[in-house]
Amino acid sequence: MRDAPIRFLFDYISPYAYLAWTQVHDLAARHGREVEPVPVLFAALLDAWGQRGPAEIPPKRVYVFKDVLRHAYRLGVPLVPPPAHPFNPLLALRASSLPMAPDARRELITRLFRETWGGGRGITDPAVIAEVASRVGLDGAEVVRRANDPDAKERLRAQTAQAVADGVFGVPTLVVDGELFWGFDSWPHVETRLRGEDPVDDARVRQWKDLPAAAIRPASRTR
Amino acid sequence: MRDAPIRFLFDYISPYAYLAWTQVHDLAARHGREVEPVPVLFAALLDAWGQRGPAEIPPKRVYVFKDVLRHAYRLGVPLVPPPAHPFNPLLALRASSLPMAPDARRELITRLFRETWGGGRGITDPAVIAEVASRVGLDGAEVVRRANDPDAKERLRAQTAQAVADGVFGVPTLVVDGELFWGFDSWPHVETRLRGEDPVDDARVRQWKDLPAAAIRPASRTR
Repeated sequence: MRDAPIRFLFDYISPYAYLAWTQVHDLAARHGREVEPVPVLFAALLDAWGQRGPAEIPPKRVYVFKDVLRHAYRLGVPLVPPPAHPFNPLLALRASSLPMAPDARRELITRLFRETWGGGRGITDPAVIAEVASRVGLDGAEVVRRANDPDAKERLRAQTAQAVADGVFGVPTLVVDGELFWGFDSWPHVETRLRGEDPVDDARVRQWKDLPAAAIRPASRTR
Repeated sequence: MRDAPIRFLFDYISPYAYLAWTQVHDLAARHGREVEPVPVLFAALLDAWGQRGPAEIPPKRVYVFKDVLRHAYRLGVPLVPPPAHPFNPLLALRASSLPMAPDARRELITRLFRETWGGGRGITDPAVIAEVASRVGLDGAEVVRRANDPDAKERLRAQTAQAVADGVFGVPTLVVDGELFWGFDSWPHVETRLRGEDPVDDARVRQWKDLPAAAIRPASRTR
């Protein structure tokens, strides 16, 4: 039996997801795994857990910019801010979720990420999405039309709802045999897991989960 | 002229701060720097920026537990959950902020972190804090008494307010010559900075800071 693919949950809005996408196929290949990309709407994850996004906390927004520049530099990956940020990623996420061959999807996602974070034109203009899809060998106009269909909207909603149900709170998240790994920084732990050397076991997790809380902030302050 | 110390902003509440404290002196020593520990109240940082803490988002709470276990295992550092979490860290933070010799402060912080995350009794009981202070060679009863004085409370408040003014939004944060590095995962970037090879420059940061936002979530959803 083949090992299950590594699921890659992402939103184009996240520069960390972009950086991670440039690396995840090598990671998976090192362990004989496939990558299954799963577009999700990051804003809906934030809503679901009552979180603020990094872009909504002024010093964190600047910090994240610096941090991703440092990562990109280390990785040798081009990183240029898109024309605007945050932006509305819905059409691109829906287009990337349409039924298509795995190779086409991978290439489409790569090109859409590059249009966003690699010095491109951004991905909010349907004409850009159509053109990118055409370059991948798809019918660009048809991709944009179908991405606006109710079932394309429902597909992205369902993927996002499933992510919330699975406890996903951020992007990128890798799902490795049911275990979540959030963020680009967790990848050394992914490698450990894939080698079968993850020190986390159910007994230890239960011990932590059942810890009593001795100090809770007033609810009015927590959202 | 000596290089400025690396400022280490922390709260005992954070297991990442504990792990970072076990490593920061080696990091600083590699670059000929001292470490200046700065206790701050993490809950007040969250309040200042309207954030939820990781412990306030159920799946993130569990995720963080797993993530710190994995880090601790990799580092070979003991990590055992305290009797309760979250807990009230105020007295320990105030005691750690009292005027004292740098060596005593370093040792006091090390022992209080160990009581919290290294299989100890937790640090909410004043008797534990007094005993720990005594082991460091301080007058334990006097430390607890002075930690309850108004000026000790004001000192912690001022340290926290200064952190907010500097744009600190989480712990641990390292301040290296005025530049903030958040979290344990940013340390490769700290090393790059200390070697004088940080790719971040003001022009690039300005370009990002001035990016227009093309999509903003409704305010009702962002806090």
